[in-house]
Amino acid sequence: MRIDLNCDIGESYGAYRIGCDDEMIAIASSVNIACGFHGGDPDVMAVTVERALQSGAAIGAHPGFPDLAGFGRREMRLQPSEVTNLIIYQIGALQAFVQAAGGRLHHVKPHGALYNMAAVDDELAAAVALAVKRVDPKLVLYALTGSRLVETARRLGLTVAREAFVDRAYRADGTLAPRNLSGAVITDPVTAGARAVTMVKTGCIPSIDGDPIRIDADTLCLHGDNPAAAAIAKAVRASLETAGIAVKAGFGTT
Amino acid sequence: MRIDLNCDIGESYGAYRIGCDDEMIAIASSVNIACGFHGGDPDVMAVTVERALQSGAAIGAHPGFPDLAGFGRREMRLQPSEVTNLIIYQIGALQAFVQAAGGRLHHVKPHGALYNMAAVDDELAAAVALAVKRVDPKLVLYALTGSRLVETARRLGLTVAREAFVDRAYRADGTLAPRNLSGAVITDPVTAGARAVTMVKTGCIPSIDGDPIRIDADTLCLHGDNPAAAAIAKAVRASLETAGIAVKAGFGTT
Amino acid sequence: MRIDLNCDIGESYGAYRIGCDDEMIAIASSVNIACGFHGGDPDVMAVTVERALQSGAAIGAHPGFPDLAGFGRREMRLQPSEVTNLIIYQIGALQAFVQAAGGRLHHVKPHGALYNMAAVDDELAAAVALAVKRVDPKLVLYALTGSRLVETARRLGLTVAREAFVDRAYRADGTLAPRNLSGAVITDPVTAGARAVTMVKTGCIPSIDGDPIRIDADTLCLHGDNPAAAAIAKAVRASLETAGIAVKAGFGTT
Amino acid sequence: MRIDLNCDIGESYGAYRIGCDDEMIAIASSVNIACGFHGGDPDVMAVTVERALQSGAAIGAHPGFPDLAGFGRREMRLQPSEVTNLIIYQIGALQAFVQAAGGRLHHVKPHGALYNMAAVDDELAAAVALAVKRVDPKLVLYALTGSRLVETARRLGLTVAREAFVDRAYRADGTLAPRNLSGAVITDPVTAGARAVTMVKTGCIPSIDGDPIRIDADTLCLHGDNPAAAAIAKAVRASLETAGIAVKAGFGTT
Repeated sequence: MRIDLNCDIGESYGAYRIGCDDEMIAIASSVNIACGFHGGDPDVMAVTVERALQSGAAIGAHPGFPDLAGFGRREMRLQPSEVTNLIIYQIGALQAFVQAAGGRLHHVKPHGALYNMAAVDDELAAAVALAVKRVDPKLVLYALTGSRLVETARRLGLTVAREAFVDRAYRADGTLAPRNLSGAVITDPVTAGARAVTMVKTGCIPSIDGDPIRIDADTLCLHGDNPAAAAIAKAVRASLETAGIAVKAGFGTT
Repeated sequence: MRIDLNCDIGESYGAYRIGCDDEMIAIASSVNIACGFHGGDPDVMAVTVERALQSGAAIGAHPGFPDLAGFGRREMRLQPSEVTNLIIYQIGALQAFVQAAGGRLHHVKPHGALYNMAAVDDELAAAVALAVKRVDPKLVLYALTGSRLVETARRLGLTVAREAFVDRAYRADGTLAPRNLSGAVITDPVTAGARAVTMVKTGCIPSIDGDPIRIDADTLCLHGDNPAAAAIAKAVRASLETAGIAVKAGFGTT
Repeated sequence: MRIDLNCDIGESYGAYRIGCDDEMIAIASSVNIACGFHGGDPDVMAVTVERALQSGAAIGAHPGFPDLAGFGRREMRLQPSEVTNLIIYQIGALQAFVQAAGGRLHHVKPHGALYNMAAVDDELAAAVALAVKRVDPKLVLYALTGSRLVETARRLGLTVAREAFVDRAYRADGTLAPRNLSGAVITDPVTAGARAVTMVKTGCIPSIDGDPIRIDADTLCLHGDNPAAAAIAKAVRASLETAGIAVKAGFGTT
Repeated sequence: MRIDLNCDIGESYGAYRIGCDDEMIAIASSVNIACGFHGGDPDVMAVTVERALQSGAAIGAHPGFPDLAGFGRREMRLQPSEVTNLIIYQIGALQAFVQAAGGRLHHVKPHGALYNMAAVDDELAAAVALAVKRVDPKLVLYALTGSRLVETARRLGLTVAREAFVDRAYRADGTLAPRNLSGAVITDPVTAGARAVTMVKTGCIPSIDGDPIRIDADTLCLHGDNPAAAAIAKAVRASLETAGIAVKAGFGTT
């Protein structure tokens, strides 16, 4: 039994620091490194890639919308071809740092609004998957489990890692419960750790209404925005290992 | 006898068009494609790479300072490591489009102020050469003939293509005559063509003062900013071919 | 009888030129100057403001989304407060150049996707109108005639100039016919001129289906993106003047 | 006896937080608010202006080079007219928020590399002073005491506030001792407070070599980048008040 734990890192920019990268690199088995559009800059990318390579984590590109002021979290209505091209651009930029450091790019995980929009919009999903395939069809695409992006990417022949969240509650239909709902955000490290173990062992988890729902996860998302989030991440990893679940990246073919 | 003719292309941005790319792609044997910092954007890069591949021209990355408003022509005082990283980033971005289109990146030519600064500053020259080497030591670096960058890059083991200008006069010391000097800019296509032939055949050319100076050129820069420039480029290519000089890219090792 | 003719200008950026500004400044009675977000830069703004002041045209700020690569034409989902602030910012930037040149800012016209979104979305309309009111309640807001923005801005106490298009056909419901419909775009200068005169004299115009519809216009939009557009603009002004209609800016209170 | 204490604030950007703005607004008698080029964004500017107005601090614009990645600390070689225009732009942007909040812009202090370059380069100094004068000749210009900018701005008729540093040692020639020199950076709050009092009372301070040098200061710069810096600032204000020196902004004519 095994699971991947992934985390977004390298989102600092110039004089601005964000995220607990050092802690998270030590906990995660795969990392998604920002590529300069929603966060990250060439110097941050160079340093982050080197640290990640030293840690042995699988390295992914984390492309986002060209919206630094909005941290890539604001929807932008782009043409599918524009989306494909901005992802190719960002994968390439990160890939060069990985190449320069003697590593190999392993996956791509879209960021923020791009991730959310591609999860529900077939055209955008195809645009994202096409970008990954065109740069390198061996790259794994990380996508929200149950989303349109999973299906679309598989149809294009990509290997997909289905992502689930351990610090967020799900609704009966398998979508994330909105943050403003009571119980939607799990802040207790022990609870988060227990949920992770249940999810990996059973493929099921109680929804916010109490009924069990199926969550097929190949990778769990760890947040590292703040010290509290990092504490949850640490607890999740410890719980998984205590339960005899190997934490590592690497996925089979579709 | 042979020579390479290179041209900067792909410098349009969003709704903004600049340069006579279609004409120039047909004339040049190698093209330098802007990478989104001083000009170019992901969509322009995608289209430009495809057109260049169809033409058979050797494809190069044309990285510049992060200064779109100044078109990369304004000096910025960056740390050498910052320069290395911004070049790695840009090479990678372009390389991904070339990869996606089934081609192979051939060379790198720095743009504008970055090109000029690296020609005379050893630290910057090393920063530029190091970036190229770290991404792929087989990439050819295009550098001003006689410049510090040529020497520095060779010492690092890179193949260098020494670049000369056919539409600009040189001073006795081998540097370009400033544009405001009378005769510094050659605007007559026939003269430019004749200079190109002389340069390739003899390795010499009369300086602005009339005395011959040595100009070792592996590649000649063609400007394509405006229709007049494109006319000069066309004349240069025709003159070279008439003189039995092959126009093609591809350079030996250092 | 009178009408205002407005045109977007100052959308060049750095080395990139766009639009027939000189021709359009001579034709328009009011100009909307880009503020650096979707187009324009500080140098372009300085020059454009001075030319506009010399021509006697009323000067407006033309704020857009922070999306130079998309020329402000791509929808971005921002919070209303974000929209208010980015408009305040841009009005202020342009206002300073007008102040520096000894003039006075007259109006504000949102650009591209911001203009279109504020026309149909009450929250965004309020965000736009609030920005104008907060900077200077005497500024006139140019808004699509019949749109939510007209109503919202008036309710906030702003003077509104209702804008109509002379080179575009309208549907029976008063909205613009999509560009891909046959007859949607008027390219004949004589026809455009005649439509302008009819619109001003009668407040009515035949829809694309032939039935007359009411179009209340205080200002007509002239396009100056290309020489053909500028020719239409010239014909519109000539037709209006021949028909005895004064072309000038300046609007009463709500 | 009186002195102004100024601090740079509002340099956060999007999701990125930087500086101890709340603490510093409470300590400073005048604040310099970033204008979106080296730091700050429209939302940060709106909030920062409102907080500053509530505190009663005099509000200044803090324009910098268009280099967010370098936080405006990297030299850029721009034409003087480009510098004038980018300062006009930024002053205007901030001024609009001040206007919208019912306040009045009091001063302008250039940031980072722009501040340092204008201190020693007459052409740049003139470009900066001209920008301030053209927007509003009643704006006070904050400039390094003893610098070319002080002289140039006064010659243009501007009121200048000469700025000195209490947490940095000076050399015998009145210039700042480089940070890498032992004793160049004062980190002890008590020492910093004592230096502030001495500077204001006597107009003199011991140089790093021990000999007294003349430092004419109308305003002292407080750093608020980190909690330690904020502690120094607090101590400086307390020391000044204990010594009976009024801390307030507002400067006479030149």
